[in-house]
Amino acid sequence: MRGTVLYGPGDIRFEESETPKIIEATDAVIRMAATCVCGSDLWPYRGLQPIKGRTPMGHEYCGFVEEVGSAVKSVKPGQFVIGSFATSDNTCPHCQYGYQSSCMGREFITRAQAPLLRVPLADGTLVPTPGVPSEALVPSLLTTSDVLGTGWFAADAANVKPGSTVVVVGDGAVGLLAVLSAKQMGAERIIAMSRHESRQKLAREFGATYIVTERGDEGIARVKELTTGIGADSVLECVGTQESMMQAIRSARPGGFVSYVGVPHGVELDGTELFFAHVHLHGGPAPVRRYLPELINLVLNEKINPGKVFDLTLPLDQVAEGYRAMDERRAIKALLRP
Amino acid sequence: MRGTVLYGPGDIRFEESETPKIIEATDAVIRMAATCVCGSDLWPYRGLQPIKGRTPMGHEYCGFVEEVGSAVKSVKPGQFVIGSFATSDNTCPHCQYGYQSSCMGREFITRAQAPLLRVPLADGTLVPTPGVPSEALVPSLLTTSDVLGTGWFAADAANVKPGSTVVVVGDGAVGLLAVLSAKQMGAERIIAMSRHESRQKLAREFGATYIVTERGDEGIARVKELTTGIGADSVLECVGTQESMMQAIRSARPGGFVSYVGVPHGVELDGTELFFAHVHLHGGPAPVRRYLPELINLVLNEKINPGKVFDLTLPLDQVAEGYRAMDERRAIKALLRP
Repeated sequence: MRGTVLYGPGDIRFEESETPKIIEATDAVIRMAATCVCGSDLWPYRGLQPIKGRTPMGHEYCGFVEEVGSAVKSVKPGQFVIGSFATSDNTCPHCQYGYQSSCMGREFITRAQAPLLRVPLADGTLVPTPGVPSEALVPSLLTTSDVLGTGWFAADAANVKPGSTVVVVGDGAVGLLAVLSAKQMGAERIIAMSRHESRQKLAREFGATYIVTERGDEGIARVKELTTGIGADSVLECVGTQESMMQAIRSARPGGFVSYVGVPHGVELDGTELFFAHVHLHGGPAPVRRYLPELINLVLNEKINPGKVFDLTLPLDQVAEGYRAMDERRAIKALLRP
Repeated sequence: MRGTVLYGPGDIRFEESETPKIIEATDAVIRMAATCVCGSDLWPYRGLQPIKGRTPMGHEYCGFVEEVGSAVKSVKPGQFVIGSFATSDNTCPHCQYGYQSSCMGREFITRAQAPLLRVPLADGTLVPTPGVPSEALVPSLLTTSDVLGTGWFAADAANVKPGSTVVVVGDGAVGLLAVLSAKQMGAERIIAMSRHESRQKLAREFGATYIVTERGDEGIARVKELTTGIGADSVLECVGTQESMMQAIRSARPGGFVSYVGVPHGVELDGTELFFAHVHLHGGPAPVRRYLPELINLVLNEKINPGKVFDLTLPLDQVAEGYRAMDERRAIKALLRP
């Protein structure tokens, strides 16, 4: 089998890799229907996050169960399944509390940019669809595996409710789907911070009511202006830099909610500023497994079309072009088809 | 009038000061029934927070309305009142949202360690008691002005609910009253972190079910042990140092709630650690005004006895001894009587 491997900054190869097989009795192997490149893949691709040599890539996936281990009970070969980027037994206390991405047995999926994938803890990680979904729904179903689940967590963690005034910081695929999520949760006003025309367009389509192009102090001033000096009820930070985090915290009203779902890179929060900002702060790796059944239903019932974030589709063996296009911001998100 | 003034580290004087009078039409002047020394007063007293020369001190107060400005409607001379350490109009959007300590017209009270105090925004800041309370209840009523209100906010901001497992970091008066607050909110298990026997005793009296004397990694390990490896649902950080903040964050379960109510001094939070800790974080200056009516009722109905944190009572003119006793940890909290 060939799979996607990162060797160093900018060096993505699709090359001969070990074929996944059942190792633990709780494993499943799935045959990929579609996979994709994540914004977080770009950190090591850009050399901004060190890797230790040859690194297999990919953690967003959906497809058909090929084989299951002897202990697997809830999925069977032939079923179409979607799973989280973080494995979970879905029974430990952290899972029961709704934080499956901190499961006591958690592993982070890698190697998903490949035709076959071993998924540990299959029973607690994978969710089967009722029947085989239509081909047209596969991209949207794929988003539930991470990028939509993460945007959804951003909105949930920031307490978005009917009538809320929401700011979304970041116009990557997660930010755009955070807009969609906030809209689904009933937000009345959604301010998307974006400077890219194609992304602004999609943000509006997903439910954004205002676009703010300014950043930093000017961006904060613009949000304050749009909220009659009060600040936003909910701010969803979908980037992971110091600048975006401070943008988020300073855009929220006292008592407001700030979520952060982009893996932080070099972020340091000053305790005194945070104290007087008076915000609620919550984030981390999205507990996608908690949301999967609901999000899969929304997609299957065509209530949402999150697959629109894929503005580039490539055969899997051209994965390197997918990374390049996203790195150069020519594409929002690249879908890969085996 | 004589009042309390800090001149520099360790240099507290009770000396001739300006007699407060009505300046704005929304002011009240109150005659102090009791005031006290706050843990936060010790930061500048210890030289750990710079002051600019002569600094009048004190922000916890209750007493009789002496005079009101022409615009004041909700309190009148002769009434017994309690107010927050932060003034609020109680009508602006931040107040309406429950964050009166971030009121758009907020001022922080100083000069309360004196026989008379000017309180701006009297209508939105002061809460009168029904009738004149008995002398015995005055210490407990005084605590609602800050130290109890702050402990209560710690428990509320950390989402303490019936059945919760709670950790309180800090055994100062705020920490002890955070224990009392968690108990009132129905916490099932309350772990108080304390190394001082008299404080442990009071913590138990207020509702603590376990005492952890260890700190740092050992303290965290002990909390994990007591929670069968899970971590606490709610952790209340009542100190404000880097050590106590990390103690709090690392003691919480993924998805758990950490509140922080001690003014942070030199606290820096690492974004990546916070992300993977997966906790909710909320804190800031306690919106005491939100809680005052409820807390005053609990005291008047003798459901709680928070005044027990005062283990030293002094005439106001001996305020310097109050600071010394608290600095040397000979006293938990010093009550001052004019």
